[in-house]
Amino acid sequence: MQKNEMQSCINACWECRTLCIDTLFNHCLQQGGKHVAPEHIKVMTDCIQACQVAADFMMRGSSLHMVECSACAEVCDACADSCEKIGGEMMLACAKACRLCADTCRAMGKAKKAA
Amino acid sequence: MQKNEMQSCINACWECRTLCIDTLFNHCLQQGGKHVAPEHIKVMTDCIQACQVAADFMMRGSSLHMVECSACAEVCDACADSCEKIGGEMMLACAKACRLCADTCRAMGKAKKAA
Amino acid sequence: MQKNEMQSCINACWECRTLCIDTLFNHCLQQGGKHVAPEHIKVMTDCIQACQVAADFMMRGSSLHMVECSACAEVCDACADSCEKIGGEMMLACAKACRLCADTCRAMGKAKKAA
Amino acid sequence: MQKNEMQSCINACWECRTLCIDTLFNHCLQQGGKHVAPEHIKVMTDCIQACQVAADFMMRGSSLHMVECSACAEVCDACADSCEKIGGEMMLACAKACRLCADTCRAMGKAKKAA
Repeated sequence: MQKNEMQSCINACWECRTLCIDTLFNHCLQQGGKHVAPEHIKVMTDCIQACQVAADFMMRGSSLHMVECSACAEVCDACADSCEKIGGEMMLACAKACRLCADTCRAMGKAKKAA
Repeated sequence: MQKNEMQSCINACWECRTLCIDTLFNHCLQQGGKHVAPEHIKVMTDCIQACQVAADFMMRGSSLHMVECSACAEVCDACADSCEKIGGEMMLACAKACRLCADTCRAMGKAKKAA
Repeated sequence: MQKNEMQSCINACWECRTLCIDTLFNHCLQQGGKHVAPEHIKVMTDCIQACQVAADFMMRGSSLHMVECSACAEVCDACADSCEKIGGEMMLACAKACRLCADTCRAMGKAKKAA
Repeated sequence: MQKNEMQSCINACWECRTLCIDTLFNHCLQQGGKHVAPEHIKVMTDCIQACQVAADFMMRGSSLHMVECSACAEVCDACADSCEKIGGEMMLACAKACRLCADTCRAMGKAKKAA
């Protein structure tokens, strides 16, 4: 895994985390209804935290970063599913960032098994 | 997975995290030498963060907690390896907490595949 | 400030954080209505994070812990206000933990100016 | 406080946090000696966490963000002091980011008292 690819993955994590925070606190909470369904709020919160951890492991240059990147990929996909089910422009933009982060983190995680 | 087992896992994560913080900041940094080797400090920091995330997912009742528990188990084992290699009473006590957390989190993660 | 007092403050932070997480994710989100008002969810989230940071600073033995303890006291009081306004057995139990944490953290913060 | 100023403050927090993580894990730990003095490692860790919290409060649009911004300013200044005392190109670059973040956060915190 090259340094450029890791930096791209860190960036994808931060963009996903930032958009999830913004969408959760400044859109979902205002919309109410299905936007504040317990499972949705939980998976958004999970995604914010999983992205943080994956990015932090990579920023530290931890040799275990693939473990947290693989976990992050699963959490991001689940968050994207939840956002897509709700729908609407803002939720779909958030889902898109989650999918991008999931794909990038999944590639990082697979690099481990190949190593 | 029963509620009691999850509470035990949350407790194991907190005990491991607390002991890792105490060992890292109030023992390793004072000892210097191999205790502050970059890979050791990184894996201790990784363990502190992985335990936090696994515990938080469980405390929220997140349906994805097994993903982070599995990741946490891997990180805790790596931290235990590093602590055991350094040796000494405090490092071995820390390693023991890491192994206990790893075992408990691994069981939590396997519950997923069985479900 | 003696070691016992700091340990009590760490404990108060963890109890407050744990109860806020439990109340937010396993009570407020299920109740809906005023329990998921944006300002309430935000201040609960703020409190969870402020307690974490204050406790972590103390656990590391950081010489700056009073700064974060003082900040935590303000956030905990605001969270208690919000919980009390909503009312009901669970919210009042949460408010009580917030007030206890606020008081303990405030004492820690004042120790700074006296030092 | 205008939206642009808050976004600048969030950016300053992230830049400071990112540089502190990079400097701590990829420079200080490799250098050893005074770079791994307990008080230095602690204040760097404090700064990483304080910047995170201040930025998160602002990203959530929390009405309490000034409290954490004021705390962050104090922690960043202490971290800058420690970096400057060690000296060298990388430590001074880190100190510069800390000072910038401290100044921006201090302005955010003062906005509170004026409001």
